[in-house]
Amino acid sequence: MMEEETKNVEQSDLSPLDQLREAWERMPHDERMDAFIRLPRSDAEDLFLNFSPIDQAEIIAQLPSLQKRSWIRLLAPDDAADLMQVLAIELRYEALALLDEQTRREVTALLAYEEDVAGGLMNSRYFRLRPEMSVDEAIRYLRAQARTTSETIYYAYVLDHEQKLLGAISFRELFIAQPQKIVKDVMQTDLVTIPEEMDQEEVSRRFSQHSLHALPVIDKEGQMKGIVTVDDVVDVVKEEATEDMQKLGGVAALDAPYLQTSLPAMIRKRAGWLTILFVGEMFTATAMGFYEKQIEQTLALALFIPLIISSGGNSGSQASTLIIRAIALGEVQLRDWWKILLRELSSGFFLGLILGSIGLLRIIFWPTRDALYGEHYFLIGTAVACSVGGVVLWGAICGSMLPLILSRLGFDPASASAPFVATLVDVTGLVIYFTVASSILHGVLL
Amino acid sequence: MMEEETKNVEQSDLSPLDQLREAWERMPHDERMDAFIRLPRSDAEDLFLNFSPIDQAEIIAQLPSLQKRSWIRLLAPDDAADLMQVLAIELRYEALALLDEQTRREVTALLAYEEDVAGGLMNSRYFRLRPEMSVDEAIRYLRAQARTTSETIYYAYVLDHEQKLLGAISFRELFIAQPQKIVKDVMQTDLVTIPEEMDQEEVSRRFSQHSLHALPVIDKEGQMKGIVTVDDVVDVVKEEATEDMQKLGGVAALDAPYLQTSLPAMIRKRAGWLTILFVGEMFTATAMGFYEKQIEQTLALALFIPLIISSGGNSGSQASTLIIRAIALGEVQLRDWWKILLRELSSGFFLGLILGSIGLLRIIFWPTRDALYGEHYFLIGTAVACSVGGVVLWGAICGSMLPLILSRLGFDPASASAPFVATLVDVTGLVIYFTVASSILHGVLL
Repeated sequence: MMEEETKNVEQSDLSPLDQLREAWERMPHDERMDAFIRLPRSDAEDLFLNFSPIDQAEIIAQLPSLQKRSWIRLLAPDDAADLMQVLAIELRYEALALLDEQTRREVTALLAYEEDVAGGLMNSRYFRLRPEMSVDEAIRYLRAQARTTSETIYYAYVLDHEQKLLGAISFRELFIAQPQKIVKDVMQTDLVTIPEEMDQEEVSRRFSQHSLHALPVIDKEGQMKGIVTVDDVVDVVKEEATEDMQKLGGVAALDAPYLQTSLPAMIRKRAGWLTILFVGEMFTATAMGFYEKQIEQTLALALFIPLIISSGGNSGSQASTLIIRAIALGEVQLRDWWKILLRELSSGFFLGLILGSIGLLRIIFWPTRDALYGEHYFLIGTAVACSVGGVVLWGAICGSMLPLILSRLGFDPASASAPFVATLVDVTGLVIYFTVASSILHGVLL
Repeated sequence: MMEEETKNVEQSDLSPLDQLREAWERMPHDERMDAFIRLPRSDAEDLFLNFSPIDQAEIIAQLPSLQKRSWIRLLAPDDAADLMQVLAIELRYEALALLDEQTRREVTALLAYEEDVAGGLMNSRYFRLRPEMSVDEAIRYLRAQARTTSETIYYAYVLDHEQKLLGAISFRELFIAQPQKIVKDVMQTDLVTIPEEMDQEEVSRRFSQHSLHALPVIDKEGQMKGIVTVDDVVDVVKEEATEDMQKLGGVAALDAPYLQTSLPAMIRKRAGWLTILFVGEMFTATAMGFYEKQIEQTLALALFIPLIISSGGNSGSQASTLIIRAIALGEVQLRDWWKILLRELSSGFFLGLILGSIGLLRIIFWPTRDALYGEHYFLIGTAVACSVGGVVLWGAICGSMLPLILSRLGFDPASASAPFVATLVDVTGLVIYFTVASSILHGVLL
């Protein structure tokens, strides 16, 4: 018996809940429901509470009507609202009807907010105190509230009779205050608050500026509506980073885990950008049409087309990635565009110099250079090197300025994805290449 | 007076601290120190505590020796350790010597950990209880500890005489427990813990799996070393997302805000990858050398080279971005490679079909098609369409499998950056194009 227990512990450092989740995730979707029903109730509850809303909805949709209620009532109002948002419309009304009246009112209020603003993130249950209570009364009152509220305790909020927020006090402060003092004399009044319509990205920035664990959400009249806690912000940060990364990679945001996205949805999310980029890239064929004569005269020029345009694309990807992320983190502002341009002009110049030199050396010292490039290999090498330099510099400028321009025009800067910048630079890169080559090789080869 | 106040509030919904920070960030670096010294002490302290370690180090480095101590002692041990890590070596020892003895011991212990493991994230100050205390005693004991510990209260940890972790109890549970009960009878023993050497990315995953606000860090012997709180995890999540995004864009992780990275550092971080990609892309020139004869015979083929290789690159960027992010979020595992491959085979096939069709139509219906492509425009169109289809499919396969292969070999999957995949697909895309074109145009044009 003893031995068996030890063995179990050694097998895995995962907690029992983690092991359950792990097994769940490896299970094919059509077997999950049977497995879920066979679990002991308390294990099933742990699992359910730790699910994402999408997984919760999968379970709820398959449960018999009579059992739905007890599962939905397990959820706190903000989690219930998240679940409602992913349920099919007809199920949503059924599910709302299963909540107790107070929770239904709270969930309905939460559903009125956009999903990605403070109101859509917040929890409408928090600890309330009256300003005229004594510290001792407040502690006793909170003890009573703690029995019925499932939220972890950080702060209690002091409200007047019109629900306006007067101040806040942390449990630590309440603990160390003298019991006979009055709440309004010990509370903090210099509060950081969040307007209910604030965008979630801005909310997450406010959290990282202040090292607080919860912030109160208030409406225009100063009435308190709920609290956003730092653990909600972790999800926001991940979600926003995922969205930005996907856009940066030239995909519309998936809004769901990779393996849970259906094939048609996956194709839809990818085909849009891919088609736009393809159509944009068609201009390279048009541009090259103009230079057909040059290519015919000096075929060696054609050999370096992929090298040159991709160098510009890579340099543009780097610059756009850096700037898009810096905008998202609030490290650079629009008004910094001048500093950024200067920075990219110098970075782009030196990077172009490095790559151009490598390109020149490659052509000059290539073993079969005479067969491939003829007697004017040095001129061809110079044309390629200058073009690489110019294209890399141009890529850095486009890649850094485009996100700023998009942001200025009110678009999401992350739409200036790496492939988008690369396409733009490809077309202009060809023009740069053939212009530079024409002027260097003029009279010799062209 | 009243009017002025109202005006001030309307001008900005930022808190005074936010306004101070805002002004600070807009200030040129060489004016900052003067401004800092002129601030009232309490404002300066607020500002200092909210700075990033890099900004704190900037201030500390410029302060006269006698003033350094009072600023450094403001910091909690984990923040002090973060500061030490960014200070120049000679300043670090000076700064360590300024701490009180207990804090110095704690900071030194924290500095022994890698920055990106649990031990480097944790706070070594937390609330401790003994198992045999009564609930009432525990509450009184915690009140006393609260007076000297600056951390927000969530949980108290129950340790035995060897500092081994026996259980934990939240303040909420302690609040609602009967005062005469014994701690070890009301504490939770089914704990989620974090080993001190766990990578910070894994730590953040563990936090998002369990909705807890703090997790205890233990060493191999089960001794408790500290706690990691959810607000530390927000920073980790941002940092890791930034790193991944920068790698994805083909830049080495900057490890500092864009505008605070010096020009030489910026060039160093970008030149490495850019050079590798450039050298890789040189194989396109080599590959094209092999097809020089075909290009000479059918110049129209050259016109579509940028279009075809960039389509493969874009499709590869999409696939690698999706998979890299899914790996980082723990949505897919290595063992899912087969499912991913199937998914990408079908997505890639349909995406290739869409783009190939657009390409064919573009060539067939182009106004000047006869002048550009000659009488065999339909065959050229077919060759281009089939190549686009093949290259897009190939891009999706490479882009999705490469991160998994890198991850299997123990490298960071994010190194399979979009530009890296694009370069790989460029070279192979040329081979696909000319092979397809040769077989379709064989005997007609080639």
